[in-house]
Amino acid sequence: VFHFGVAYDGTEYAGWQVQPSAKTVQNEIEWRLARLYDVDKVNLYGTSRTDAGVHAGDQRFSFTPPTPGRFTPEKVKFLLNRWLAKDIRIHDAREEQPGFHARKSAVAKAYIYSVRYRESYNPFLNRYFWDVNYPLRFDRMERAAELLTGTHDFAAFAAKAHRDIHSTSRHIFRLEIKRLENEFYIIVIGDSFLYKMVRSLAGYLILRAGRSDEWEEKEVIRLLQGKEKERPHFVETAPARGLFLDKVFFREDEMATYQPQLPPFFNQNYSG
Amino acid sequence: VFHFGVAYDGTEYAGWQVQPSAKTVQNEIEWRLARLYDVDKVNLYGTSRTDAGVHAGDQRFSFTPPTPGRFTPEKVKFLLNRWLAKDIRIHDAREEQPGFHARKSAVAKAYIYSVRYRESYNPFLNRYFWDVNYPLRFDRMERAAELLTGTHDFAAFAAKAHRDIHSTSRHIFRLEIKRLENEFYIIVIGDSFLYKMVRSLAGYLILRAGRSDEWEEKEVIRLLQGKEKERPHFVETAPARGLFLDKVFFREDEMATYQPQLPPFFNQNYSG
Repeated sequence: VFHFGVAYDGTEYAGWQVQPSAKTVQNEIEWRLARLYDVDKVNLYGTSRTDAGVHAGDQRFSFTPPTPGRFTPEKVKFLLNRWLAKDIRIHDAREEQPGFHARKSAVAKAYIYSVRYRESYNPFLNRYFWDVNYPLRFDRMERAAELLTGTHDFAAFAAKAHRDIHSTSRHIFRLEIKRLENEFYIIVIGDSFLYKMVRSLAGYLILRAGRSDEWEEKEVIRLLQGKEKERPHFVETAPARGLFLDKVFFREDEMATYQPQLPPFFNQNYSG
Repeated sequence: VFHFGVAYDGTEYAGWQVQPSAKTVQNEIEWRLARLYDVDKVNLYGTSRTDAGVHAGDQRFSFTPPTPGRFTPEKVKFLLNRWLAKDIRIHDAREEQPGFHARKSAVAKAYIYSVRYRESYNPFLNRYFWDVNYPLRFDRMERAAELLTGTHDFAAFAAKAHRDIHSTSRHIFRLEIKRLENEFYIIVIGDSFLYKMVRSLAGYLILRAGRSDEWEEKEVIRLLQGKEKERPHFVETAPARGLFLDKVFFREDEMATYQPQLPPFFNQNYSG
């Protein structure tokens, strides 16, 4: 099984997952892979179904080569990078044991949500930040983040699509707010996430805990009991452009040493 | 006289200077200023007429306020930043003595030309680099840069528009190539530049001195004698997206301590 790491600027794409009539990152890779192997279709599995406009520094995908031995993983990486638009770059290529699967073998994912505040807007980075220009109560945001960490029912933090699945219980290993001078980052590591859950968490932390006078601690506890029928109106989805899939973990012990580089999109490792 | 520093991502603009039917950076600022002062037109002077697609970290512009005392420079900055698109950010505002003029008072300008090589393409920075994927002879590029430094006739390094002006002699204070792991930067400081001169210098250094087997030192010396009737075919214009106006000097002694931050577009000072 071949396994790759890919970075992309999601601005121009309708997300990761293949859709019949939209330009998606998986589409862009998949049809080129099929052409490379001269087959009708290659089944490619990505770890995360990032939404339209969401970016990735290290999305992972895997597939079983239709004709094993024809190309090395490095050669596949090289050729795909030749043909792909430059806003998609494959930067890691490896061969795994049979049975490896980029989604099923992953144990956790780290996302970073990037926010600029204080009206300090470097014009070269507009595509990667949510801009927020009102005072925020960081003490309350941090308290809410603490309460959200752990295993809970996150139904109140998911868009409707979560109803297709049998459980809305998820585990958040880490949920942390890192403040720099003019921007802050919400870093979240979880085992898996419900539909729009990361952006709902970011929206809730910022617009509700950070901004609203109505927020109180016990609201978080109440929301996590999974008794909400609808996502409450005050749990808003933060814009896609601030969201960044930073890392996929395939071993639990990797999480302990994970320290994201901030801002995430300048990382040299994303180079193809 | 009011004097401002402005950063912009040039990707979406037909350059700095006002044109009747194109979106330019000067246009965007000028009509908002006129509206602010409730006049038909404000005459605004920019230091550099950056071309379509060229970026700036610290372009300078000045104007005489139509109604002095109505707004402070800080207030003008604040209001313009409110109204401008986010790919233009005014980050410095000051009041100068009468007679100050952003172009005429400037003694030199520093440009940075950014190039990625070794096929290492961070997908989040595509709009700010020229990508070059062939081996380069840096020793020859550095030798050519050395020969180009100083006062010379640069007619061979300018597009045709230079013929409207009476002299094609210019002084280059510094022309330097800074190599980092996966990219390099051409830093050039000059008193003023002919039309497309910086991009012609970059194109010549890279495609001719760096790449062509035909290059030899004496070619540079010959080109600088100003005997060329046309810009030679091998002096090519490097793409606009790699070019960045980094700094305008209003005093000669500022040049000695100038050390550009690389890459230039992450500078915190560009924040509005």
